[in-house]
Amino acid sequence: MDKRPLILVTNDDGIFAPGIRVLAEEMRAFGDVLVVAPDKPQSAMGHAITIHHFLRLHPVDLMEGVRAFGCSGTPVDCVKLAVYHIIQGRPALLVSGINHGSNISINVLYSGTMSAAVEGAMEGIPSIGFSLMDHSIEASFTHTRSVVRSITGNVLRHGLTRGTCLNVNIPAEIAAPLQGIRVCRQAWGFWEDDFETRKDPAGKEYHWLKGRFKDMDQGEDTDVWATNNGYVSVVPVQFDMTAHHEIAALNTWDHAG
Amino acid sequence: MDKRPLILVTNDDGIFAPGIRVLAEEMRAFGDVLVVAPDKPQSAMGHAITIHHFLRLHPVDLMEGVRAFGCSGTPVDCVKLAVYHIIQGRPALLVSGINHGSNISINVLYSGTMSAAVEGAMEGIPSIGFSLMDHSIEASFTHTRSVVRSITGNVLRHGLTRGTCLNVNIPAEIAAPLQGIRVCRQAWGFWEDDFETRKDPAGKEYHWLKGRFKDMDQGEDTDVWATNNGYVSVVPVQFDMTAHHEIAALNTWDHAG
Repeated sequence: MDKRPLILVTNDDGIFAPGIRVLAEEMRAFGDVLVVAPDKPQSAMGHAITIHHFLRLHPVDLMEGVRAFGCSGTPVDCVKLAVYHIIQGRPALLVSGINHGSNISINVLYSGTMSAAVEGAMEGIPSIGFSLMDHSIEASFTHTRSVVRSITGNVLRHGLTRGTCLNVNIPAEIAAPLQGIRVCRQAWGFWEDDFETRKDPAGKEYHWLKGRFKDMDQGEDTDVWATNNGYVSVVPVQFDMTAHHEIAALNTWDHAG
Repeated sequence: MDKRPLILVTNDDGIFAPGIRVLAEEMRAFGDVLVVAPDKPQSAMGHAITIHHFLRLHPVDLMEGVRAFGCSGTPVDCVKLAVYHIIQGRPALLVSGINHGSNISINVLYSGTMSAAVEGAMEGIPSIGFSLMDHSIEASFTHTRSVVRSITGNVLRHGLTRGTCLNVNIPAEIAAPLQGIRVCRQAWGFWEDDFETRKDPAGKEYHWLKGRFKDMDQGEDTDVWATNNGYVSVVPVQFDMTAHHEIAALNTWDHAG
């Protein structure tokens, strides 16, 4: 009998979030599952790692037949601890999520879920981040299961090109069925932020970040368009951030003096 | 007389680090300077933002003629507070650093210094991250000043293409003079991590992250090669993380069932 592949599961909503439970359940059909996830919510932590403090790992009884640890650090810390401390080797696959909320467009940079997948890619592990575009705590994940199975099966069959991972966003469950899966590029957009300033009981100001995502992209090949039109978006993501097309122009600059 | 451009200065080592003082001093020749920087070290915070807690801003008396605020959040929070709360508009330029330590290769993703510059690019602000490849607290910044002036002057003259910023790494001051400035791509590398496990007085384990950066790239057009050979590296960085070259291959996958 073949040895079953080892699958690492993480997220940024924390090890007790409903989404990671769905993901771990689905992964049991594909291999042996190890869960290493933050012990508290770590949304919007991006690619942060913990260098000024130590890390703790706590065994967690998550579900039958799954080895699971809560970690005091960020999602990227979880990947590092899994690879270099717990496994001391590379798993066959890393899956992150299922995130409670959207990670389309530039949110790939803020997202702890996606940063864990990017860290996996840096380590040479085929990695996928899954997000459900619904923040509600009672959000239904039922329709996400077949998507997770289809994309995971494809990644295990075809592999991913070195240096890349996948950013998968699944529309919220609505009356209409999903239209299918579309491979997309990351849409151009930005956060139009706003701060709500309040005063504490001592009269000192403090500020809450609030923002609205602004889609600036008219393309029909983007993750924003796809998810707005009922499709699951799959964006191949790379960690080479070089704007290669700018190198020639910058070489014309005069740096004398 | 022309209105002087407004220049936003931030970093990730904190508002009292020597590197940000050098940067703010040099910027006074180019325009009116506003400093908004973390009130404590925020290295390796990547693109993290603060969404589960409020933010504080404290006026700081940093230097003559410069308006300065310490912020309780991350480098990216500082950019958002500057743009959407303090200025309520876009500065002409954002400069981040001078970081105490290298941000070459994939460190662009972990770096708070560079994430602040990337956030600037997202906001449509010409943005530059500067790093000195010397962690020492007594590191000399003398040789960085002419580099900062040259690159800043070029960015103000030529602008930067929308969606891009610059990652500038300056070798530590050594006997030999700098060889010049080279436009580069981000080198391929990864962190070979290691955890040092200790026991606390109660006998419970904790783990310190330790790592060694492994350069996996033989190219002579990379930031690793340039800085190893005495050059200042300038990498144009984009926040579109799409691996565009992978889209065609992913479209051949079968998602039936």
